[in-house]
Amino acid sequence: MDKDAAEYTSSLIFDRNLFEYDIMTDFAHLIALNECGLISNTELKKLLSLLLQLYREGFNKLEASYDVEDVHIAIEGWLAEKVGNIAGKLQTARSRNDQVATDLRLAMREKLLELLDSLLSFERTILTFAERSSSKLAIGFTHLQHASPITFGHYFLAYFDMLLRDLNRAISAFDVTNRSPLGSGALATSSFRINRKKTAELLGFDSLVENSLDAVSSRDFLLDSSYASLSIMLTLSKLAEDIIIYSTTEFSIFELPDSLSSTSSIMPQKKNPDVAEIVRARTGMVVGEFTSIASILKALPIGYNRDLQEVSVHSFQSVRTATESIRIMNKVVKGLKINEERVREILSDGFSNATDLAEGLVKDYNINFRDAHRIVGKTVKLAIERKKALVDIDPKVLEGVIFEVTGRKVKVDKKYIVQLLNAERVLYERGTGGPSEREVKRMVDERKENLKRVEEEVKRRKSRVDESKKNLFDIVKKIVR
Amino acid sequence: MDKDAAEYTSSLIFDRNLFEYDIMTDFAHLIALNECGLISNTELKKLLSLLLQLYREGFNKLEASYDVEDVHIAIEGWLAEKVGNIAGKLQTARSRNDQVATDLRLAMREKLLELLDSLLSFERTILTFAERSSSKLAIGFTHLQHASPITFGHYFLAYFDMLLRDLNRAISAFDVTNRSPLGSGALATSSFRINRKKTAELLGFDSLVENSLDAVSSRDFLLDSSYASLSIMLTLSKLAEDIIIYSTTEFSIFELPDSLSSTSSIMPQKKNPDVAEIVRARTGMVVGEFTSIASILKALPIGYNRDLQEVSVHSFQSVRTATESIRIMNKVVKGLKINEERVREILSDGFSNATDLAEGLVKDYNINFRDAHRIVGKTVKLAIERKKALVDIDPKVLEGVIFEVTGRKVKVDKKYIVQLLNAERVLYERGTGGPSEREVKRMVDERKENLKRVEEEVKRRKSRVDESKKNLFDIVKKIVR
Amino acid sequence: MDKDAAEYTSSLIFDRNLFEYDIMTDFAHLIALNECGLISNTELKKLLSLLLQLYREGFNKLEASYDVEDVHIAIEGWLAEKVGNIAGKLQTARSRNDQVATDLRLAMREKLLELLDSLLSFERTILTFAERSSSKLAIGFTHLQHASPITFGHYFLAYFDMLLRDLNRAISAFDVTNRSPLGSGALATSSFRINRKKTAELLGFDSLVENSLDAVSSRDFLLDSSYASLSIMLTLSKLAEDIIIYSTTEFSIFELPDSLSSTSSIMPQKKNPDVAEIVRARTGMVVGEFTSIASILKALPIGYNRDLQEVSVHSFQSVRTATESIRIMNKVVKGLKINEERVREILSDGFSNATDLAEGLVKDYNINFRDAHRIVGKTVKLAIERKKALVDIDPKVLEGVIFEVTGRKVKVDKKYIVQLLNAERVLYERGTGGPSEREVKRMVDERKENLKRVEEEVKRRKSRVDESKKNLFDIVKKIVR
Amino acid sequence: MDKDAAEYTSSLIFDRNLFEYDIMTDFAHLIALNECGLISNTELKKLLSLLLQLYREGFNKLEASYDVEDVHIAIEGWLAEKVGNIAGKLQTARSRNDQVATDLRLAMREKLLELLDSLLSFERTILTFAERSSSKLAIGFTHLQHASPITFGHYFLAYFDMLLRDLNRAISAFDVTNRSPLGSGALATSSFRINRKKTAELLGFDSLVENSLDAVSSRDFLLDSSYASLSIMLTLSKLAEDIIIYSTTEFSIFELPDSLSSTSSIMPQKKNPDVAEIVRARTGMVVGEFTSIASILKALPIGYNRDLQEVSVHSFQSVRTATESIRIMNKVVKGLKINEERVREILSDGFSNATDLAEGLVKDYNINFRDAHRIVGKTVKLAIERKKALVDIDPKVLEGVIFEVTGRKVKVDKKYIVQLLNAERVLYERGTGGPSEREVKRMVDERKENLKRVEEEVKRRKSRVDESKKNLFDIVKKIVR
Repeated sequence: MDKDAAEYTSSLIFDRNLFEYDIMTDFAHLIALNECGLISNTELKKLLSLLLQLYREGFNKLEASYDVEDVHIAIEGWLAEKVGNIAGKLQTARSRNDQVATDLRLAMREKLLELLDSLLSFERTILTFAERSSSKLAIGFTHLQHASPITFGHYFLAYFDMLLRDLNRAISAFDVTNRSPLGSGALATSSFRINRKKTAELLGFDSLVENSLDAVSSRDFLLDSSYASLSIMLTLSKLAEDIIIYSTTEFSIFELPDSLSSTSSIMPQKKNPDVAEIVRARTGMVVGEFTSIASILKALPIGYNRDLQEVSVHSFQSVRTATESIRIMNKVVKGLKINEERVREILSDGFSNATDLAEGLVKDYNINFRDAHRIVGKTVKLAIERKKALVDIDPKVLEGVIFEVTGRKVKVDKKYIVQLLNAERVLYERGTGGPSEREVKRMVDERKENLKRVEEEVKRRKSRVDESKKNLFDIVKKIVR
Repeated sequence: MDKDAAEYTSSLIFDRNLFEYDIMTDFAHLIALNECGLISNTELKKLLSLLLQLYREGFNKLEASYDVEDVHIAIEGWLAEKVGNIAGKLQTARSRNDQVATDLRLAMREKLLELLDSLLSFERTILTFAERSSSKLAIGFTHLQHASPITFGHYFLAYFDMLLRDLNRAISAFDVTNRSPLGSGALATSSFRINRKKTAELLGFDSLVENSLDAVSSRDFLLDSSYASLSIMLTLSKLAEDIIIYSTTEFSIFELPDSLSSTSSIMPQKKNPDVAEIVRARTGMVVGEFTSIASILKALPIGYNRDLQEVSVHSFQSVRTATESIRIMNKVVKGLKINEERVREILSDGFSNATDLAEGLVKDYNINFRDAHRIVGKTVKLAIERKKALVDIDPKVLEGVIFEVTGRKVKVDKKYIVQLLNAERVLYERGTGGPSEREVKRMVDERKENLKRVEEEVKRRKSRVDESKKNLFDIVKKIVR
Repeated sequence: MDKDAAEYTSSLIFDRNLFEYDIMTDFAHLIALNECGLISNTELKKLLSLLLQLYREGFNKLEASYDVEDVHIAIEGWLAEKVGNIAGKLQTARSRNDQVATDLRLAMREKLLELLDSLLSFERTILTFAERSSSKLAIGFTHLQHASPITFGHYFLAYFDMLLRDLNRAISAFDVTNRSPLGSGALATSSFRINRKKTAELLGFDSLVENSLDAVSSRDFLLDSSYASLSIMLTLSKLAEDIIIYSTTEFSIFELPDSLSSTSSIMPQKKNPDVAEIVRARTGMVVGEFTSIASILKALPIGYNRDLQEVSVHSFQSVRTATESIRIMNKVVKGLKINEERVREILSDGFSNATDLAEGLVKDYNINFRDAHRIVGKTVKLAIERKKALVDIDPKVLEGVIFEVTGRKVKVDKKYIVQLLNAERVLYERGTGGPSEREVKRMVDERKENLKRVEEEVKRRKSRVDESKKNLFDIVKKIVR
Repeated sequence: MDKDAAEYTSSLIFDRNLFEYDIMTDFAHLIALNECGLISNTELKKLLSLLLQLYREGFNKLEASYDVEDVHIAIEGWLAEKVGNIAGKLQTARSRNDQVATDLRLAMREKLLELLDSLLSFERTILTFAERSSSKLAIGFTHLQHASPITFGHYFLAYFDMLLRDLNRAISAFDVTNRSPLGSGALATSSFRINRKKTAELLGFDSLVENSLDAVSSRDFLLDSSYASLSIMLTLSKLAEDIIIYSTTEFSIFELPDSLSSTSSIMPQKKNPDVAEIVRARTGMVVGEFTSIASILKALPIGYNRDLQEVSVHSFQSVRTATESIRIMNKVVKGLKINEERVREILSDGFSNATDLAEGLVKDYNINFRDAHRIVGKTVKLAIERKKALVDIDPKVLEGVIFEVTGRKVKVDKKYIVQLLNAERVLYERGTGGPSEREVKRMVDERKENLKRVEEEVKRRKSRVDESKKNLFDIVKKIVR
C-alpha cells in the first residue's frame, strides 16, 4: 500500500490502548483453538509463551512504524519474526473484525470501571460535604437571581442525586460493553467449531453478542460509554459554572484553595478558577466527541466498514476526559471553602424570603394566596424605596397594605415578622426533599445506604473482571511452564 | 412586558403538548391542597369542575395570543375569568418551576410508551421476517465488498438485536422520567406541608425526584429520551442505507413496494427509496436535536434558568421523529421483496466463499492456515484471469498451486470443490450466532421468548400509567358530581 | 403512495416558505419557454394570469392536504384544475430538482437581507451606545475576575467589531446564495435550449451555478447561511451571558428595563433576564441546527437525494432565530442602564490597577519589570492584610518593599501613588485599541465610516433583489394585461 | 499549584504547535520594546540571540514536564535559566493573553496556506481529469437511481466547482486570521506605548485586531478555519461515498489502484476502499471538532477565559484533517480507473434516456409535454414487460401508445428512435452547464483561467507571509551579529 495511504488509514497510534487486550484475546483464542484440535499443545505453548513475553515487554517493543495498519498486524508480524509460519495459525477461525471488537470491549470495560471508581469516590466526598453543611445557609437562585434561602447540605445533595443517575448510565454502558463478539469472524462466524462461550468465559464477559453480523458491526457500546461520559460532564459543568460565579469578587461565596487556582504574581489576591473553566470547556469537547461518533455511525451500511475504526478514539477520549474531570473536581470540592458570613450578608440585604411572608399571611391571617402575593409585592416596593430589608419594615406599613388590598384591618406584630422571616425558621418549615437540616440529614442517611448498594454493584463487576483476568493469566502461565 | 420580548420568550406554541398534563397536575395538586386544609371542599369542587370542563373543551379554548408566557398562565387566566379570586389558590404551595417539570414528565412518559409500542411492533415484524427468511441466501458485506454468504434470517436478526438494545435505552429513559418533582416549588419546596408522595401516587409516578433543587433544575430525563431516540435512529439509518443501496438497479437485491416508493410518470420502472432517504436525513436531524440539548444544558448554573424551557422542544421532537420513523420503516420492511435469484447470481459470480475453500484445505488437507490463505489467493487470481468463478476452477490448477506453496503433491476432486463451495453447505457449517438456518431458527425461538418478556416489561409500565390516569379522573369526577 | 409514507416524506409544511418564490420561478421559466417557442403567447398569458391570481390569493388557497409531496405539485395541481392539460407545459425543460433549488435560493436571499438589515440596525445602536459611554468606567474581566478598568465605550466597541465580522459572514452567504440553478433540470439540463442567463437575469441572480450537477446537488449556500447565523448567535450569547451576570444582585452593573425582563408579583424587585437566557439557549439550538445540516450532508452521493429536502428547515430556522435574536437584543441594549456608581465601588475595593503601579515603578523608578511585579504583589498582600485598597497604602510600606526586593532606597510620594492609580489616568495612558476615551472616540469615528460602507454594500444587494422582483412582476402584468 | 490540577489545565502538549511562533512573537515584541527604550540594545541583542538559539534547538530542548502551564512559561523559564533577571523584561507591556492570540494566528495562517496549497493541487488534478474525460460517458443518479447519461468531464467539474467555493471559505478564514492582536495586553493594552502597527508589520499581519478586548477574547478565526475545513470534508465525503459505491462489484464503475486500497491475502480480487471510508469517517470527526468549538464558545463572558485554550486543538485538528484528506484523495483520484464499458452496459440496460424520448415527441411530433410523459411512461412499461431496452422497442408499439393517449395517428421511424436515444446525441443536445463535451470543454477552459486567478490570490498571501518571516529573521540575525 502507498505509504501515505497506509499512514492515513493506520489505527496504530490509538491501538496502543488495545495492546494488552489484543494479547488477552489471543490467549483465549489460542486456548480455544487447541481445544478444537486446530493447534497442537506444542504450538499452543510456544505461541502463548511468546505472547506472554511480548505482554511483559510492552507495546514499544513492537517498534512499529506508523504505516502499519493496526496492532493485530504488528503483533502477528512480531510473532512471525520469532516463530515463522505457525504465527499464522493465530488467525484460524478469527478475523480482525471480531478481534478488534473484542479488544475494544475489554479495554472499554476497564476504562468504565475506572470512571465508576472515580465517580464513587466523588460521591463520597459530596455526601460528606453535604452532611457537614446540612445547616449551612446557602442561596437558591432562579435566573441567577435570589429565589430562596437553602442550605449547602441541600445544594450538594442535588449534585449527589444528579451524579448518581449519571453513575447508573455508566453502569448500563458497562453492561452493554461486557459481552463477547469473539468467534464472529469477519461477520459470519467460521466453519471451525470454536467454542464461543468458552472464550467469553475465559475473558470474563457476561454473555455473547450472539449474532455474528451484529457483533462485528455494532459500536453502540462505544456510543453508550460516550453518552455516560457526556452526561457526567454536563453535571460537572453545572458545578463548574457555579464555582466560577460563586468565586467572583462580587459573589465571594466560595473560596478556592490556592493549590487549585491560578494566580498572578502581581495580583496575588486573585484566584482564577482555571480548573473549573477547563472542566467547562472539556464538556464542550465531549459534546463534540459524542457528535463525531453519532455522525460517523449514521447511515453506515451493515457489516464491517473501516469507518468504525474512527469511532473508538472519540469514545475513549470521552471516558478519559470524564474520569480526569471527576478526579480534579473531587479535589476542588474537597478544598472548597464556603464563606458563610457572605451568604448571610447577601440574604439579609435581599428579599428572598418574600414568599415566606406571603405564606405566613395565608396561614396566620387567612388571606387568599394571590392577595397575599400582592400585599407582599407592594410591601417589598415600599421597603426598597425606604432602603430597608423586608424584615425591618414597620408593621404599620404592612397593616396599611393589607387594608388597601383586602379591606381588612388586622394587627401585625413586629416580633411576628422577625420570627417569620428568620432564615433558620424559613428553612425549618420546608417540606419533603427541601433544604431543612432535618430533611438534609434524613436524605444523607438514606443516600449513604444507596451509595453502599451502588458500590456493591460496581464492586461485583470489577471483581468479575479482575478475577477472570487473573484466572486467564494463571492458565496461560500454567501451560507455558 | 414588551410584546416582542413576550413573543420571543413565550413557550405557548410548544405548551400545546402540555395542556392536558397541566390540568392533570392541577387535579392532583388541588386534591392535596384540600387534604392539607388549604382549600375548602367547595373550592375544590368548583376548581376541579372548571378544569374538567376546560380539559374537555381543549387547548384551543384558551384563545391564547402568543405573547402569553406559557400554558400555566393561560389556564390560570381562563380560570380567573370564570371564577375570580379563588383561581389564585391553585398556585398555593406550588411554583411554575415544579409544575412544568411535572407536566413534561407526564407528557414524555406517554410519548415514550408510544415509542416503545411502535418499536415492539417493528420487532415483531422483523422477527417474522427473519423466521420466514431463515434459509434465504443473502450477502454479507465488509467495506461494501462481498465478504461471505449469509442468510436473510441472520441479517434481520442482527437488526432485531440492535433494536432490542435500543428498546432497553428507551425503557431506561422511561424509568428516569417517571418520577415526581411536584411539591418542589420554585426550588426549595414550601412551608405548606403538601404531601408529595400523595400527589406522586395520584399521578402514577414511580417515586419522587426527591431533592427539590434537583427536581426543578434537571432535564436529564429529556436528554435520556433524546438519546434513546438517537440510538434508534442510528439503527434505522443503517437499515435505510442498506435499503437504498440494495434497491439500486446495480444491486437489485431489494424491491420496494410501489406504495412506499416514489416514481416518476416518465420512468415508471424507477422506484425511488424516498422513505429510506428521509429516515436517513432525519437521523441527521436527531443528531442535531441531541446536540442542541447538550449544548443548552452545558454550564447552566444550578436552579431554574429560562434556558431549560428550550430543551423540551428538541427532546419531544427527537422522540416523535423516532416513533414516526419506526412506524414507516415497519411498513417498508413488511412490503420489502427480496430478489433471491439476484443474490444467487451475485454469489455465483463472486469469490465470497474463498475463505471456505481455505478452511477446507486446512481441515481436509492439513494445510497451515496462512498457507491455505496464500493458496486460495493465488487460485482466485488465476480464476479471475480465466474469467471463471472459484467453483469452476480446474482441480489441476488448485493442485498446482498447492504444490507451489507447500511443496506437497495432493489430489483434489472436482466434486470435493463443488460440495465445499456450495453456499448452503458453507452456511450449514457456520458456528454459534452464525447464518446457518439451524442457528437462525434457534435464535428466532429464543428471541420470541425475550420479546415476550420485554413486552411484559413495557405493558406493566403502560398499565400503571393508564390506570393511574383513569383513577385520577374517576376521583375528580366523583368529587365534581 | 401510501398515505403515511406520503405524509412522512412531504415537505409541504415547510414549503409554505417557498410559495411566492415558486411562482416567481414559474414566471421566469414561462417567459423563457415562450422565447424558445415552447409555449405560445396565448398559453403564456393564460398561465401567467392564473399564477398571478394564485400569488395574490396566497398559499392557503391551495387547500393542500399534507400528504401532497411538495408545493410544486400543489401549484401544478391547482393550475391543472383551472386550465387542464396546458398546466403540464410548465414542466417542460425543468425538473423539480432545479426548481426547488431556485426557490430556496430566492427565499434565502431575502431572509439574509432581513438578517443583514437587523444586524446593521443593531450595529448602529451599539455604536451610539459606545459613543455615549466613551468615558464611562467599566471593569475588564479575565476568568470573571477583575483584570483592569476599561470603559463601556471600549466594551461595546468590542461587540461592534465582533458583529461586523459576523456581518461579513452573512454577506458571503448571500453571495454564495444569489446564483441561479434554474435550467439544470434533474441534473443534466435538457435538450430544450432554455436561456439560463435570461432566467437568472429575470430573477435578479448575480450569476449561474453553472454546472448542472453541482446546481441540483449542492446545499452549501444553506450551510453558509446557517454558519453565519451561528456565528452571530455565538456573539449574542456572549453579550447575553454578560447581561445575565452583570444583572445579578451581586454584580448590579447592568439594570434591565422592566419591559424586557420578567418579574414576579411577589418579588417586584427581581428582574429576571429571561430574554438573555432565551438568546443563550437558542444559541444552543442553532449549534444543533448547524450540526443537523452537516450531519445530513455528510457522505451523500452526488446528484439529487431526497435527504436534501431536510436541510432547508434547519437553515431557515437558523437564520430566523438569528434575526429575531438580534432584534430583541437591540431592544435590550437600547434599554440597558449602566450603574456607574456600582462600577466605581467595585473598582475602588479591588486591586485591578495593580499592573499600573508596576508599570509606574518601571517607568519612574527604573525598576526591572519582573521586580516591579514582585514589589506590587507583596504590597497588595500587605494591603489586603491591612484591609486597605492599594491606593490607600502608606508610601513607607511601598518603599520598604522596594528596598526588600531591589536593595534600593527610594522615596515615594503619597500624591504620586494617588495620581498613578487614578482610574481616569490609568485609562488615559492606554495605547492603540485600548479603553481610553481618546481611543474610543477615534475608533467610533472610524467605525461610523466603516458602517456606512457596509450599509452601502448591503443596500446595493437589496436594491438589486427588490428591483428585479418589481421588474419581473411588471413584465408579467404587462403580458397579462 | 497542585500537580494534577497543573497537568489537567496545562496546554503544553498542544503548544508544541506554537513553539516557533511564540519565538517569532518574542522577536517582534523585543524589537518594539527596544524602540520605545524599554530595553537596551545590549539586552535586546542578548535576548534575541538566546531565543534564536532556542529556535534552532527546538521545542524538545525545553525538557518541559507536562504540568508546566504553557509554552510561554516554558520559554521564559528557559531564558531565565540562561540570563536571569532580564528574561523578565520580555513580559513588559505584554500579557499571555495577547501573546497566545498572536501565536495562534501565526500558526493557523501557515496551516491554512498548506490547506490552500493542497486544495489547489487537488483542483488541478480534477481539472485535468475532467478535461481528459470530457466525452467519457457517466451516469447521473438521483436517489442513487439512474437519471440521465452524463459525462465524467461533467461529473468532475461539479466537484471542481464545489471545491472552489470551499477554497474561498479557506481564503476568508485566512483573511480573518491574519491580523495582529499583539499589544493588547491582558485586555486593555498597556501604559507603555508599544507600537502595535510596527509589530504587526514585522510579523506580516495585514492589519490589527484593533480593539484590545476583542483581540484577546475572540476566537472566531479558529471557528472560520474549522468551518472551512468542515466544508471541504463534506465535499470530500461526497466523493468518498461515490467512490465506495462505484467500486462495489455491483457498480464496478471505478477501479481503485492497488496501492490505495486494502486487500486480503485470501480474496485478492477485493479492493477495499479503506481510504475513502476513513475520509468519510473523518468528516464525522470534523463535524464533532466544529461542534466542540461552537459549544465551548457559546455563552462565554467577554474577556479572556481559560476555556479559550481548549478551542485551539479542535481547530488545528480540523485543518490538519482536511489537509491530509485532500492530499490522499488527490492520490486516489489520480489513480482512479474508469470502467467505460461497464457504464455503457448499465446505460444500455436502463431507461435513463426516457426523458429524451419524451422531449423528442414534444419537439418533433408537437405533442404536449405531459402527454409525452404519459406516452413514454406507458412505453417503458411495455418494454419492461417484453424485457427490451427502450431503444429496441418496436415503433408500432410506440405509435399505438401515442394514439391511445392523444388520439392522433402518427408514423414513427425505427431509425428516428435509435438516433434520438443515442447517448452521445442525447448529451450533445444538452444546454448551458450541461454534460456535453462541448460544454465541458468550454467550462474547463474558463476554469483554467479561474484557477490561475485563485492561485495568484493564494500566492500573494503566501509570499507576504514568507517574506515577512524571512525579513524578521534577517533583522534578528543582523542585530545578533
